[in-house]
Amino acid sequence: MPTEQDFIALVSKFFKEHPRIRLGPGDDAAVITEISTQEFVISVDAMVEDVHFHRNWLEIEDLGYRALAAALSDIAAMGAIPLTFLVNLGIPADFSLANVEELYNGFKTLGDEFCISPSGGNFYRSPKISIGVTVIGEVRRDMEVRRCCAQAGDVIAITGDVGRVAAAIHLLKDPFLSQMVNHKVKADVVSKFRRPKPRINEMQSILRNTSEVHAAIDISDGLASDILKIAQLSGLEAVLYEEKIPVHPSVNFIAEKLHKPVWQLVASSGEEFELLVVLPKEELQKLRSANINLTEVGEFRPTFKPTVKIRRSIGEEVEFTTGFDHFVNPLDL
Amino acid sequence: MPTEQDFIALVSKFFKEHPRIRLGPGDDAAVITEISTQEFVISVDAMVEDVHFHRNWLEIEDLGYRALAAALSDIAAMGAIPLTFLVNLGIPADFSLANVEELYNGFKTLGDEFCISPSGGNFYRSPKISIGVTVIGEVRRDMEVRRCCAQAGDVIAITGDVGRVAAAIHLLKDPFLSQMVNHKVKADVVSKFRRPKPRINEMQSILRNTSEVHAAIDISDGLASDILKIAQLSGLEAVLYEEKIPVHPSVNFIAEKLHKPVWQLVASSGEEFELLVVLPKEELQKLRSANINLTEVGEFRPTFKPTVKIRRSIGEEVEFTTGFDHFVNPLDL
Repeated sequence: MPTEQDFIALVSKFFKEHPRIRLGPGDDAAVITEISTQEFVISVDAMVEDVHFHRNWLEIEDLGYRALAAALSDIAAMGAIPLTFLVNLGIPADFSLANVEELYNGFKTLGDEFCISPSGGNFYRSPKISIGVTVIGEVRRDMEVRRCCAQAGDVIAITGDVGRVAAAIHLLKDPFLSQMVNHKVKADVVSKFRRPKPRINEMQSILRNTSEVHAAIDISDGLASDILKIAQLSGLEAVLYEEKIPVHPSVNFIAEKLHKPVWQLVASSGEEFELLVVLPKEELQKLRSANINLTEVGEFRPTFKPTVKIRRSIGEEVEFTTGFDHFVNPLDL
Repeated sequence: MPTEQDFIALVSKFFKEHPRIRLGPGDDAAVITEISTQEFVISVDAMVEDVHFHRNWLEIEDLGYRALAAALSDIAAMGAIPLTFLVNLGIPADFSLANVEELYNGFKTLGDEFCISPSGGNFYRSPKISIGVTVIGEVRRDMEVRRCCAQAGDVIAITGDVGRVAAAIHLLKDPFLSQMVNHKVKADVVSKFRRPKPRINEMQSILRNTSEVHAAIDISDGLASDILKIAQLSGLEAVLYEEKIPVHPSVNFIAEKLHKPVWQLVASSGEEFELLVVLPKEELQKLRSANINLTEVGEFRPTFKPTVKIRRSIGEEVEFTTGFDHFVNPLDL
């Protein structure tokens, strides 16, 4: 059986020289050079077998990709760019050195897009695969984008589309449903579950073109729950327009097979890692003129009780709070 | 059952204002102000039920204390001082809000000693308690102490004493052994297992009094394995003197009951979190004159094959490589 040192030796080769990382893996800690005009932005995330995924749902390489994507998504929402990451890896006894290499290849595939590599980590035996990722990023001093500070009248805009992750989990869980849909529909939704894109570059483009992003968050729990966090911190009510929420045609197709309204599927779709960006309407128009692809999905209004509503296509407004909570509903516990 | 938001709300109150932490818990990431003369030092560690401990071995408060101590110990070895930490917490279904508060009280007890508090985290459901800690510390640029760079003739010095952790695990595992020792012996060894001291302040005192620490490491796998890492990176052979290794009388007592040579118990004693410091002999004398409490336990010699030997009291030298590997020998997997 490989020892901890074997794993450390294997993954050390994934580290690449970086002008800011003075000391990478192989010592007690990683060392990063500071620059006085900047701020470090640090976030941790975890992806655990049978809590966040089942092993037969993903290739091992996808696991690394997805765990890193989740952590990067948090710093994308802050307006930061990543510098490096550290890994806290629980490895089951049936995992070989080659399996760990596959997992790190997943880190590498995504990390290469942002010129980052792992500068440290920790390994331990674990009955289940457990991937903790700490991402360190950077933002110009005072320029970080927070969750608070939406203003009444601001619009809510979103990158990409929502709903495919919940649709993928339905497909992966339910062989009968899976038989009802063709290969293309499956590929459309499962691809986003396996390889979500952290919106680092999109947020950087936004911030280059406007200095008036009042709030931002990435969708990790679900559209409704995550907008609610901004609403609560800002003391406002959010209204989303059902017909404007960008939904992939394959999600519509699966919702139909499930006999569920699409918006319910969308509401419960966590780990989408799209960004929700809150800004004045005229700033959104400016971004669109700069060819930045954002969809306006709602607005903030004054309120006595912060909440999130959805304005149905038929005109009525209903409360919109069904999120996905791994905490209350882990997959298998 | 409490939701993730309940846990987040509970632990947010443990964050204390800090001049360098611009944004603590409650957003997507923590934000730390940079200073151009400094470097960030970052390390991750994990403490997992039935891999690193059994639940009946410790109070819940000890768990928090010990997990933070382990992570702080890594940055102590780099010569850094801590700024803040982030927690990646896997919470079993039978854990209440009050239990999580106890765990955070453990973080607080130790964190208060160094004026640090948790500036972020992540929670997930988990079948076992799983505590990932990311510590962020700081050191003056180019002043970090590495594992490499021991020189032939350097002496090896150690803080505190070694062996109590292995002795404690023997006691905790073996009720018959436990019956053979009195309360004081138990308290002596189990206290170090429950509340190990990260040697942050000791290392700072050392570095204020000498600029010639050539290498340092904290004892996490065991005296022999950890010295071996320095030996390998420095291309040298380490020799430890059996009679000089500082061992608590209660460890001698337990070794006798176990019919084991004390040095074997010491060799396999991981997670001691004492520091091994490598420096010229005259520098060690300088530190002693400054009343810094370090014990000289060995030296580095030239070699063709990096290794660690122990010079027995009877004069012979034997290879000394029995470490504790949670990887190969997790407690319960």
